[in-house]
Amino acid sequence: MKIYLDCIPCFMQQALRAGRMATSDEKKLKQILDETGDMIKNISPQATPAETGMIVYKIVKDITGNNDPYKDIKKQHLKETKSIYPELEKIVAESDDKLLTAIKIAIAGNIIDLGVNKSFNIVEDVKHILKQDFAIFDYNAFKKQLEKTTNILYIGDNVGESIFDKILIKELKKPVKYAVRSIPIINDVTIEDAIASGLDEVAELIDSGCKSPGVILNQSSAEFLKLFNKSEFIISKGQGNFEGLSDCNKQVFFLLKAKCPVISNHLEVKEGSIILKEHLPNID
Amino acid sequence: MKIYLDCIPCFMQQALRAGRMATSDEKKLKQILDETGDMIKNISPQATPAETGMIVYKIVKDITGNNDPYKDIKKQHLKETKSIYPELEKIVAESDDKLLTAIKIAIAGNIIDLGVNKSFNIVEDVKHILKQDFAIFDYNAFKKQLEKTTNILYIGDNVGESIFDKILIKELKKPVKYAVRSIPIINDVTIEDAIASGLDEVAELIDSGCKSPGVILNQSSAEFLKLFNKSEFIISKGQGNFEGLSDCNKQVFFLLKAKCPVISNHLEVKEGSIILKEHLPNID
Repeated sequence: MKIYLDCIPCFMQQALRAGRMATSDEKKLKQILDETGDMIKNISPQATPAETGMIVYKIVKDITGNNDPYKDIKKQHLKETKSIYPELEKIVAESDDKLLTAIKIAIAGNIIDLGVNKSFNIVEDVKHILKQDFAIFDYNAFKKQLEKTTNILYIGDNVGESIFDKILIKELKKPVKYAVRSIPIINDVTIEDAIASGLDEVAELIDSGCKSPGVILNQSSAEFLKLFNKSEFIISKGQGNFEGLSDCNKQVFFLLKAKCPVISNHLEVKEGSIILKEHLPNID
Repeated sequence: MKIYLDCIPCFMQQALRAGRMATSDEKKLKQILDETGDMIKNISPQATPAETGMIVYKIVKDITGNNDPYKDIKKQHLKETKSIYPELEKIVAESDDKLLTAIKIAIAGNIIDLGVNKSFNIVEDVKHILKQDFAIFDYNAFKKQLEKTTNILYIGDNVGESIFDKILIKELKKPVKYAVRSIPIINDVTIEDAIASGLDEVAELIDSGCKSPGVILNQSSAEFLKLFNKSEFIISKGQGNFEGLSDCNKQVFFLLKAKCPVISNHLEVKEGSIILKEHLPNID
């Protein structure tokens, strides 16, 4: 998905929000906004929001010297989500369609997104999403592909959400490789966070090579790209990965909540919708 | 009021919103965002939001060649507000405290602000505000000063709101000079709009000399500044004029609705509050 004009003011908001996580020095915050503003003219119309997001968060890091502004809040989210994990497992175990319930829980985890300017309440939002209907629901295709596949590539998104991914991965009942970001970016899941989430117990952890808040194939490691291309079943979580992969030439199942007006307009759904979307490769 | 860091992403949003009122050419819209982004590093920490707003809207004008992007919507707001004018006059006539009701109506008109990213429904919002309590309520000081004064300077804000101002001006029952912007800026009231609002029937119309979305004294005409300094009773409408005049060395009564987080934090009130605030001159 290419960048929309509406993403640009949002980058300024993200720069200020991330800046404030890293420092309270008003001069540095102004400098972050100055440099983000300066960068706008260099945004290519072909860039994805995730690519530009990477530049914004690099500006924050360079100016504040803080490589992981969201460190404390990620820890807090892990603690909160771990505390409700047994309850989530119980909900799945007691449901009629365990796979579907686990998918919904994995999407519910996608509310834990600090790149989007929305407040959230983990427990309440999960309960709400469990009752919510999908705006795009390619569940049959998902089940069909899951049945056929011998391997799964699961592209993770945010910390905390990662705990919810564990629930779904256990329900997939196939070997899963779980891909993470290469460095801390917003509250996105890294190898370290994936281990802290207990994902190493249910999946093989893979570094995507990406430093952006969303996988971008031409910035991934050669190893990840090879894996991506040969994967039979790809699950992509969240908006950032959707932005990076929505035009790729592979079948991908996108699980996300449409949390901003740009993404919801792009998908032609209402803001707040939950999505299970099969993306098909281009026909050459 | 000096600019806050949170105003900066808001300028980008305003640039895009105003740009879209003036053109649908995506390249020009991107250019507007590029130039607004570029301008951020030149914002002085001493600038008021209204001063910077003036630069943003000038960028939109220069790139699109459209000097009055809000022309059509201003006409529409005038039509809508004129149609409810008789009803508003009736509400005042039937109320126990006619002056206070007219003040509330004048503040209700302040919802018609296209610089702020909020949707509004004129009739519904007026009804709501008539029932709403003030968060800051210097009504006694207002009445006392009104009683003493022989002249009033009333600084207008938006078109449509201007119709509501007429109601209050009639209730003031003293000679009123009504100050307007020098050129079209957002949907702010100019001489032409003031005449179309019928304000020339109840007040003497004065060009402030300001080209910003809010009066800024050091950018006003010498004539307006002289008038401002000798006025015995000054009423300032809306956020933009508040931003420009909140540190001035004169008694000013600010009538506004706090419509954005920056203004409401500055005033230490909840967003959406209605305000009748007496500002006092500095003691030298």
